[in-house]
Amino acid sequence: MEDIQVDPPQKGEVRIRILFTSLCHTDVTFWQDSLKLGLFPRIFGHEASGIVESVGEGVTEFQEGDHVLPVFTGECGDCRYCKSTKSNLCKKFRGDVKRGVMICDNKSRFSVRGKSIYFFMGSTFSEYTVVEQEYVVKVNRAAPLDKLCLLSCGVTTGLGSSWNFAKVEKGSSVAIFGLGTIGLGVAEGAKLSGAAHIIGIDTNPLKFDKARTLGVRECMNPNDFDRPIHEVIIGKTDGGVDYSFECVGSANVVQTALLSCHEGWGKTVVCGVEGGNKTVNSHPQLFLYGRTLTGTLFGGVKPKSELPTLVAMYMNKELQLDQYITHTLPFPQINEAFEFLLQGKSLRSWECYNIANSVVNAHFVHGLWKRQSIALGSND
Amino acid sequence: MEDIQVDPPQKGEVRIRILFTSLCHTDVTFWQDSLKLGLFPRIFGHEASGIVESVGEGVTEFQEGDHVLPVFTGECGDCRYCKSTKSNLCKKFRGDVKRGVMICDNKSRFSVRGKSIYFFMGSTFSEYTVVEQEYVVKVNRAAPLDKLCLLSCGVTTGLGSSWNFAKVEKGSSVAIFGLGTIGLGVAEGAKLSGAAHIIGIDTNPLKFDKARTLGVRECMNPNDFDRPIHEVIIGKTDGGVDYSFECVGSANVVQTALLSCHEGWGKTVVCGVEGGNKTVNSHPQLFLYGRTLTGTLFGGVKPKSELPTLVAMYMNKELQLDQYITHTLPFPQINEAFEFLLQGKSLRSWECYNIANSVVNAHFVHGLWKRQSIALGSND
Repeated sequence: MEDIQVDPPQKGEVRIRILFTSLCHTDVTFWQDSLKLGLFPRIFGHEASGIVESVGEGVTEFQEGDHVLPVFTGECGDCRYCKSTKSNLCKKFRGDVKRGVMICDNKSRFSVRGKSIYFFMGSTFSEYTVVEQEYVVKVNRAAPLDKLCLLSCGVTTGLGSSWNFAKVEKGSSVAIFGLGTIGLGVAEGAKLSGAAHIIGIDTNPLKFDKARTLGVRECMNPNDFDRPIHEVIIGKTDGGVDYSFECVGSANVVQTALLSCHEGWGKTVVCGVEGGNKTVNSHPQLFLYGRTLTGTLFGGVKPKSELPTLVAMYMNKELQLDQYITHTLPFPQINEAFEFLLQGKSLRSWECYNIANSVVNAHFVHGLWKRQSIALGSND
Repeated sequence: MEDIQVDPPQKGEVRIRILFTSLCHTDVTFWQDSLKLGLFPRIFGHEASGIVESVGEGVTEFQEGDHVLPVFTGECGDCRYCKSTKSNLCKKFRGDVKRGVMICDNKSRFSVRGKSIYFFMGSTFSEYTVVEQEYVVKVNRAAPLDKLCLLSCGVTTGLGSSWNFAKVEKGSSVAIFGLGTIGLGVAEGAKLSGAAHIIGIDTNPLKFDKARTLGVRECMNPNDFDRPIHEVIIGKTDGGVDYSFECVGSANVVQTALLSCHEGWGKTVVCGVEGGNKTVNSHPQLFLYGRTLTGTLFGGVKPKSELPTLVAMYMNKELQLDQYITHTLPFPQINEAFEFLLQGKSLRSWECYNIANSVVNAHFVHGLWKRQSIALGSND
């Protein structure tokens, strides 16, 4: 943890004082960076909430004091992607794990003792960060930022995938592979959609109680069965589920999710980020007989256009966010929070961390903590 | 070519006098049967038209003299699949390449000198055949059966895939891999849907002229390029096509079709039958960024409910069928027709076969011929 220099926002950019940030496993995936995609040193963190501190030239959408969520995938509103009703991606302002500099001048706004530190999808593990305005969503000032930060990535990704992207119908059967925050968001979205049977699959049974509170009716640990879990699911669901969601980030799990789907109409949605080179290896006949493999980033939610709706749903108590928070830690304890994320087993060690809920979401937990100063803005 | 015995139809079955049958490559795939799925000896052929000769007990939908198309995938109208708006499969009356006997008694209706000969998806390479009533579609008597037989498999599979299943939108870009009858049907369906740019890809340039008459605007031979064809397509279409269709039956081609799709919304539809064990190997990120891989048997068309609409479209001249017919041969020349199908190169040898059109669709040609007696019904 070091003091860093955060340069002022340039044309079209916004500098945000991050108030809350939470951990998403994608930070770990690209910290480990097995494919050597990134530029180092870089500041991780991308799921956060904060207040606009200053804006660059030409920024009219935001002003100092606005409550905002930085998001990792942008929305310019003008490109072919933004104008398409089929996609929530943006052609220019992409969810790009490789990018380490700002788009306008190919420079980073972060430095330490004169040496540049690279950017990563928002770089919210810093008290101040600078992002292009297309990656910022203004939110209702009345909404609590310590909860909303979860909408900046994980919960939206999960909830959006089932509710908004797959449009799970009333009465459907759903299998969710991985019961971290994305998986729990999928469950919440499926429940909102009226799914009749929601199955949650995880190798860590510590996640099951929390999953049940968010809509999962039946929890399964693949290690409890002597045959492949997709066969178990097919057996229990008259031929397979209507929808399956991969929320782990593993090509092998995508394959299992696909095999768990019903022929004729079963749809598998990839929500997790596979950070390695592994591929899904599937016989064309799976598709010929009517299965669909698809996926979506950020739950198919267009950030500026649609995220405020989720905020309103939370304010109207139609959407749960508080349930996802298992730990609230001060920022200097970030390394301990990463330990929680990576181990996810030490149930009893929670007490010393002001645990908000009674179950840890293990490998995919979003530990939440209030930011303290580790980085200094150049104007401070 | 032998005289065979064709037993009378049993309960729920229909015996059809086949008047016209055409070749589909699926007959060849399961004749070669590289996965050893089938029971031999069997009678191939599944794309045909004919007249009901007699019906078994309990059959009320059909009577002697009805003009019908046998279809390889059934419709009972009652099962979960038939009642679903998402699928054209039928739970009980499946498109099953392995089945060699009738469902009601596990026996074949064919024999030669007392020895049973197995069934295959309609077994239309016989003057008479017996199929379950769920696999029979009654058609308008005014429609010419020599053309309609193409709707029994290939044209419906292609046309249905783009027009009915993928629902290609006006202005879309489409890439079709394989310009046999299925691929040409896809082109016709895409043109009907108002696609703006239809690209046809085949390694046999002899197919290109015919493809152009059915809506393909740009033809490409992968062998003409020094880089992968998906890169060529991406370069020509601002990032990839909106829809790609695999009409070859090759896992490798499915992979190429998927890579040719635009991120965010590109959809690949598997229409061809991969008869081997090869798999599609794709990185989950292709899906995470919004591509979709799906597929459909028989173009997503529910045979009894929807095929009569295609017949009506043909009668109203909204649909072309005549164009697909390149050869009209008497049935005893079936082996020569297979040579045409498998070689597809001998342009000059056509003349002796009463060629209806000026281009052979090579590997995927549906040679058409009028049936002559090779099989005898037991009541004849």
